Amino acid sequence: MIIIMGKTSTQDQLKSVIDWVENHGYQTHVSEGEEVTIVGVVGNGRPIEQYQIERLEGVERTVRILEPYKLTSLDMRPEPTLIPLNGTKVGGKQVVVIAGPCSVESREQILETAKLVKEAGATALRGGAYKPRTSPYAFQGMGLAGLELLAEAKKVTGLPVVTEVMAPEQVTMVAQYADVLQIGARNMQNFNLLHAVGQTNHPVLLKRGMMNTLEELLMSAEHILSCGNSNVMLCERGIRTFERYTRNTFDVNAIPALKARTHLPVIADPSHATGHWQYVGAAALAAVAAGADGLMIEVHPHPEVALSDGLQSLKPDKFADLVVRLRAVAEAVGRTL
Amino acid sequence: MIIIMGKTSTQDQLKSVIDWVENHGYQTHVSEGEEVTIVGVVGNGRPIEQYQIERLEGVERTVRILEPYKLTSLDMRPEPTLIPLNGTKVGGKQVVVIAGPCSVESREQILETAKLVKEAGATALRGGAYKPRTSPYAFQGMGLAGLELLAEAKKVTGLPVVTEVMAPEQVTMVAQYADVLQIGARNMQNFNLLHAVGQTNHPVLLKRGMMNTLEELLMSAEHILSCGNSNVMLCERGIRTFERYTRNTFDVNAIPALKARTHLPVIADPSHATGHWQYVGAAALAAVAAGADGLMIEVHPHPEVALSDGLQSLKPDKFADLVVRLRAVAEAVGRTL
Amino acid sequence: MIIIMGKTSTQDQLKSVIDWVENHGYQTHVSEGEEVTIVGVVGNGRPIEQYQIERLEGVERTVRILEPYKLTSLDMRPEPTLIPLNGTKVGGKQVVVIAGPCSVESREQILETAKLVKEAGATALRGGAYKPRTSPYAFQGMGLAGLELLAEAKKVTGLPVVTEVMAPEQVTMVAQYADVLQIGARNMQNFNLLHAVGQTNHPVLLKRGMMNTLEELLMSAEHILSCGNSNVMLCERGIRTFERYTRNTFDVNAIPALKARTHLPVIADPSHATGHWQYVGAAALAAVAAGADGLMIEVHPHPEVALSDGLQSLKPDKFADLVVRLRAVAEAVGRTL
Amino acid sequence: MIIIMGKTSTQDQLKSVIDWVENHGYQTHVSEGEEVTIVGVVGNGRPIEQYQIERLEGVERTVRILEPYKLTSLDMRPEPTLIPLNGTKVGGKQVVVIAGPCSVESREQILETAKLVKEAGATALRGGAYKPRTSPYAFQGMGLAGLELLAEAKKVTGLPVVTEVMAPEQVTMVAQYADVLQIGARNMQNFNLLHAVGQTNHPVLLKRGMMNTLEELLMSAEHILSCGNSNVMLCERGIRTFERYTRNTFDVNAIPALKARTHLPVIADPSHATGHWQYVGAAALAAVAAGADGLMIEVHPHPEVALSDGLQSLKPDKFADLVVRLRAVAEAVGRTL
Repeated sequence: MIIIMGKTSTQDQLKSVIDWVENHGYQTHVSEGEEVTIVGVVGNGRPIEQYQIERLEGVERTVRILEPYKLTSLDMRPEPTLIPLNGTKVGGKQVVVIAGPCSVESREQILETAKLVKEAGATALRGGAYKPRTSPYAFQGMGLAGLELLAEAKKVTGLPVVTEVMAPEQVTMVAQYADVLQIGARNMQNFNLLHAVGQTNHPVLLKRGMMNTLEELLMSAEHILSCGNSNVMLCERGIRTFERYTRNTFDVNAIPALKARTHLPVIADPSHATGHWQYVGAAALAAVAAGADGLMIEVHPHPEVALSDGLQSLKPDKFADLVVRLRAVAEAVGRTL
Repeated sequence: MIIIMGKTSTQDQLKSVIDWVENHGYQTHVSEGEEVTIVGVVGNGRPIEQYQIERLEGVERTVRILEPYKLTSLDMRPEPTLIPLNGTKVGGKQVVVIAGPCSVESREQILETAKLVKEAGATALRGGAYKPRTSPYAFQGMGLAGLELLAEAKKVTGLPVVTEVMAPEQVTMVAQYADVLQIGARNMQNFNLLHAVGQTNHPVLLKRGMMNTLEELLMSAEHILSCGNSNVMLCERGIRTFERYTRNTFDVNAIPALKARTHLPVIADPSHATGHWQYVGAAALAAVAAGADGLMIEVHPHPEVALSDGLQSLKPDKFADLVVRLRAVAEAVGRTL
Repeated sequence: MIIIMGKTSTQDQLKSVIDWVENHGYQTHVSEGEEVTIVGVVGNGRPIEQYQIERLEGVERTVRILEPYKLTSLDMRPEPTLIPLNGTKVGGKQVVVIAGPCSVESREQILETAKLVKEAGATALRGGAYKPRTSPYAFQGMGLAGLELLAEAKKVTGLPVVTEVMAPEQVTMVAQYADVLQIGARNMQNFNLLHAVGQTNHPVLLKRGMMNTLEELLMSAEHILSCGNSNVMLCERGIRTFERYTRNTFDVNAIPALKARTHLPVIADPSHATGHWQYVGAAALAAVAAGADGLMIEVHPHPEVALSDGLQSLKPDKFADLVVRLRAVAEAVGRTL
Repeated sequence: MIIIMGKTSTQDQLKSVIDWVENHGYQTHVSEGEEVTIVGVVGNGRPIEQYQIERLEGVERTVRILEPYKLTSLDMRPEPTLIPLNGTKVGGKQVVVIAGPCSVESREQILETAKLVKEAGATALRGGAYKPRTSPYAFQGMGLAGLELLAEAKKVTGLPVVTEVMAPEQVTMVAQYADVLQIGARNMQNFNLLHAVGQTNHPVLLKRGMMNTLEELLMSAEHILSCGNSNVMLCERGIRTFERYTRNTFDVNAIPALKARTHLPVIADPSHATGHWQYVGAAALAAVAAGADGLMIEVHPHPEVALSDGLQSLKPDKFADLVVRLRAVAEAVGRTL
């Protein structure tokens, strides 16, 4: 940490600050400039919070030097984490494609979709049985019955299942049906839920909150890793901004910015990131070009009767066309799909 | 709902859209302009989602007419909801002041703070026993021991307790200690948790997520009300923007904008809304002037050793001074404090 | 400046960085920690940009220590700048009220409004003759004719005139009519325009861009001050966020955050900051409570025929009522109005 | 336009609204629902602003039906606008690459860079002679001398020149040197400047403001087109959000969202959109995959001594490598480069 003293701070205040810090077990290096004095804090003492020092007399502010995440960092593990999924490894050369409806709505719907996305080349099936909905009056998911339909779709198609878990007490049950436990954007900082999935061995797909920084995303992953589960995929799904032509703003920069900091795979969700089926293709192609390790795409055979997210779901034939184009771009950047 | 047909849509498409809507039990009114045709949808049919219509051929977009919240709305209940707290009513003429540390840290700390804020004129005591923290390595709260210390502080001072609950399975236990159950900003859309507190009779203080619109805040309140609990206070605590001199941007507009739509009381949290003790006073005064029904203010006797939020906590003497100034402004706008 | 070396940087890289910095005329202080090495840079050398150092081999990042603004800073001038306006001083004890229509639309409109706001207690008259409009098809202002009507209104009422200047070549002409030159939000970083008003002696009201940080606002003021004109009032007028119930989000925190850094007066514009006449009163009261030195409020006698900003304009009777309430709050915080 | 009457509005108010609208030359269609009444407004009357109606008694709100831009719209011109540049057409099959330093700094610097980007395959040379800078103490550009150096670089390499114009009175002069006049992000709503470039025949590259919506970008283009100049390229260059790992957030969604609305070419600037050279490549590849018609990339032979934007400039060898990868992705999506 670096401590920046106020311009009008006194030598006594400086001395008190140095004593405070050294009493916590750190060493200090003082640089006195003409305008301000800076105190570098090094060594391994007892944990201190920046604001504790900022409340000491004479201190202007402090600057953190080290990243707050550890296990998630490339420093800790320079090679990519590979997570097995349907015979391939998420985080490796192959770009994976997770596809399916927003919600499981009926046996017919999920089986039809599963077959069609499998044919088109999907790696895994997505579908929500428990749905976080802004309105209490909207469809909240089929619950356990939905999980059972996902299991049937998996049996029929062989596609592994990615599905959301919404509360700590659901984790054990959902994990019996899910190959990948999804943490939704609204739950990215539901720490009790993060701890619950951290205590399983299951792969986790952690979606970025719509207004969370990448650092907070890495810190939420750190919550999971620090509980012992390092099979975490991060998912950029669009952030909330002032722009209104699209539902969210796809932060494609997140892909290289995360890759520069962490060994965890990075998935993109162009459906939520755009909110409109017409833009899903462009965003998906962009994600692959930018280095995403996978895509999560909403596909629904009949979007006009979908019970959720109908505007951003691709019809199966559009999805099949897109997979062909995605493969071309993947190959252009040295990947497969 | 209003349906706006695309400029190049055909009469057949228009007819199909009308049939689709009428088959769901609604009536339609068509306005054909020179450039576009508009279809008004009225009556009470089966629930339809906007995107379902937007996926029909020829439709450009739809416009929602009615607000999505019902029980929360002033239409449903034109007079203010009053929630009893320490002999007064939140939502009435008196502006309430909830004060205390971010976290319960020790018996000495919470008792000292409780006594000092009581003397200064606080209506209730705040303090977290379960703390959502971005970092897994930061202090996560004292848990049950913290709740017991809050109970002791209440016994000593008579101040009712406002404390956070983080997970559905904690609700019953926390409710034994808390006079008001706080839902934190990060949990504003943790719907399982909203349903759990909705099933109690306890007053709830629902904080706006830093990333959430006011409409989403009202919808989260609707989740609680629709479970049968209408003792909900809304809390504006700052939103996330691009500005960096303050931790959050205090959306003071939220106060009149919420009051224009809902009968629920509106509380402001100037501590989180600014993130810096130097600005807490100005924001608190602004909130009262703008019509807030109450304030939630972090107070810590020794911020330089606080285990959380030390930068934004007022020292007790500053808090006592602020209460005097708050009272003057409250009276200037026809309230008491 | 502080230089943070990368964790894997070498001693040779450190040496090169130190040489580079010292060759520019600075001294360095090195703090070697177990994980990272920090280099403090002090003294007065040739100007260097942070990124120049960040492009040197082995450097992780740099941290700026000093604020980038000088003349605008409280360090440079600890006492408030007072700007004369209609017999009072902006920045002193009295809270000034600048009121009038968004645009000058006709002789009758501006004279009627000027008389009414004068009666209600306004300090100055606002009104735009040159209007920046998002649409090329909207009313762009009356231009010179509008300025002449403002001069007539000033003659009749004695109210000084605040009006916008949009381009460098207009400054001389507008300055003949305006007592205060307004720089609109969209022009806050139109540096040619800032330099042009900086070369006059006229008071300037500089509005914060809806997209700009407070630091950028201070830097734009610095552009004006560095040209020799220090009669600058800063104006918070709402920033753009994700919230949609209001046109902008009023950043009331800006008032104390600016006051903590600069000697320039701070004005608030609750009309633009809310965008809706129903919320203007609450925002104006909040601004005064938070310490604003003045208010700029849109008033129109017939908003339903206004050629711009009709939704956020108060009718004169509402304005007169508001002034009474504002005065009460001003007095509650030790000011007059 | 659609008018939504308030739930408690009366028949008299409805009648007054209808009269008001019909008196302006429009026809009305009324849909009376159980809860609300809607008035559709069609036909071609005198211009009215939404807020004018919203201020009428009994009106809740209004909804705009038609886009506010006309000449810029695909409705007006369904085929793409093609703008000649260096033997190709911007907006056609070929993806153009505009490359060069942020600022012209010296004869040697601009000539060296021009030659290197030409060799690497650039279509045009960028370089600023007039620089908008947040700080008055930063390098403000070489001015006329910079323009002359650009002319020399053009003569030597044959590359056309893209350079910024900052004020209306500079347009004539800059147009003598520039093949494409760039309007910077901070000037996107400097309407006097838009009108000045609109009155030339010169191609214009209009950068999106960092906090402007796509609709506002289209409206600013409309300002230029409505002055008679339709050679406008739009440029997405990143928007301001809460994310801090990158300088801006690259809104890659803007590419398909603009293409769905306008016939104008869309360029992406991955340098500003990321702010860091390490991420420029990923963002550039994403832009091409998403359908951009061109790229504008900052290249500097010695970023560690650059006078502006050194952190986001690519070194020439990195740029040359990137062009090869960009070409592969362009071909994968059916374009050339």
